[in-house]
Amino acid sequence: MPSPRKQPVESRHGPAYPAPVERLLTELTRLPGIGRRSAERIAFHLLRGDAESANRLAKAVTDVKSAIGHCAVCSNLTESSPCPVCASEKRDRSLVLVVEQPRDQIAIEQTAMYRGLYHVLLGRISPLDGIGPEHLTVADLLARIDDPTKNAGGVRIEEVILGMNPTVEGDGTALYLMQELQSRPVRVTRLARGLPSGWSMELASKAVLADAIEGRQKIKE
Amino acid sequence: MPSPRKQPVESRHGPAYPAPVERLLTELTRLPGIGRRSAERIAFHLLRGDAESANRLAKAVTDVKSAIGHCAVCSNLTESSPCPVCASEKRDRSLVLVVEQPRDQIAIEQTAMYRGLYHVLLGRISPLDGIGPEHLTVADLLARIDDPTKNAGGVRIEEVILGMNPTVEGDGTALYLMQELQSRPVRVTRLARGLPSGWSMELASKAVLADAIEGRQKIKE
Repeated sequence: MPSPRKQPVESRHGPAYPAPVERLLTELTRLPGIGRRSAERIAFHLLRGDAESANRLAKAVTDVKSAIGHCAVCSNLTESSPCPVCASEKRDRSLVLVVEQPRDQIAIEQTAMYRGLYHVLLGRISPLDGIGPEHLTVADLLARIDDPTKNAGGVRIEEVILGMNPTVEGDGTALYLMQELQSRPVRVTRLARGLPSGWSMELASKAVLADAIEGRQKIKE
Repeated sequence: MPSPRKQPVESRHGPAYPAPVERLLTELTRLPGIGRRSAERIAFHLLRGDAESANRLAKAVTDVKSAIGHCAVCSNLTESSPCPVCASEKRDRSLVLVVEQPRDQIAIEQTAMYRGLYHVLLGRISPLDGIGPEHLTVADLLARIDDPTKNAGGVRIEEVILGMNPTVEGDGTALYLMQELQSRPVRVTRLARGLPSGWSMELASKAVLADAIEGRQKIKE
């Protein structure tokens, strides 16, 4: 009968996977949202698969770093600077929609209903995470407004649309930008808030209903 | 006022990230447990970080495929075949503990309480997932038993310990192996089931308590 008090060896001192597997697990667990267990699942998936698909993944990782940069005008991710949107002469360059992330810009582009330019902040102000305006591309936005040569085509910006997420941090970021834009000769608007199309009213939260009432739109005088 | 019926463009037809980012997202979403959102988080993390760490990840992915193989004796992951455990003359080569996955072997090694060899099945029988014994290393295990020259050091295997996970599929796999080993001249045992050391009895499920009662150990005649 084994002694009842024997304790297992601490895992960090014990044997482990072969060194190349451990190195891969270390690199994988550095990624956001990947814990040790997920890293193991991914590593075993790669070990089971063919070398071709592992190489494609490795190449995609290195390529993305060498081929992608930020647009000198709007800070969005791009292969060429200025990015295709800033470079397009068909866009209204006096109109700039400010968003938090590249994916927000994509979401707006996919509606095919906006013809102006963008400015990507690359985040939102979040004091709890230690993220202030100096960590975002706020200074680039203000420079674009103050100096038309820094905007696409040298066009003066006439309207700035605030398109932050409708969250506490998004609202805080919008408030900060509003203060910065107060004294500047530009119109400032923000995306409408209200009932999300396709939802049912009974699912809407109090905050959504309050937005819908406050921002009600006239359909007949 | 915008028309109330306008629908957003389908996301797969709309604009997307620059091509290298999309290629990375495609490769990342092929990995188990990584959806589009997680892939975006990882891609942005890599884009924000330095090229050095992205290159380390890429290299770890390719290295793991080129440097890691399976031990010819026990099928465990290894840089050299036979693996260090099978190659060690200090291990009892007449004793083989059969486990499902490399991580199970590591868990046992970390206890530093087992001095025999291993056999890694690389999975468990799971009819619902279409995994049968032919997808595992069962044939290699039987060959090791039937032909001592296929075991480490040419030693005849005297005892096989079944160390599958205490799950429905683990039990099914153990049952299958038991049938295969029935007619072979080896002792067959399985890892003990019972109360997990360090737990409280009131947390134990009915199945755990039933195992503990059925497998009760004599401490006085």
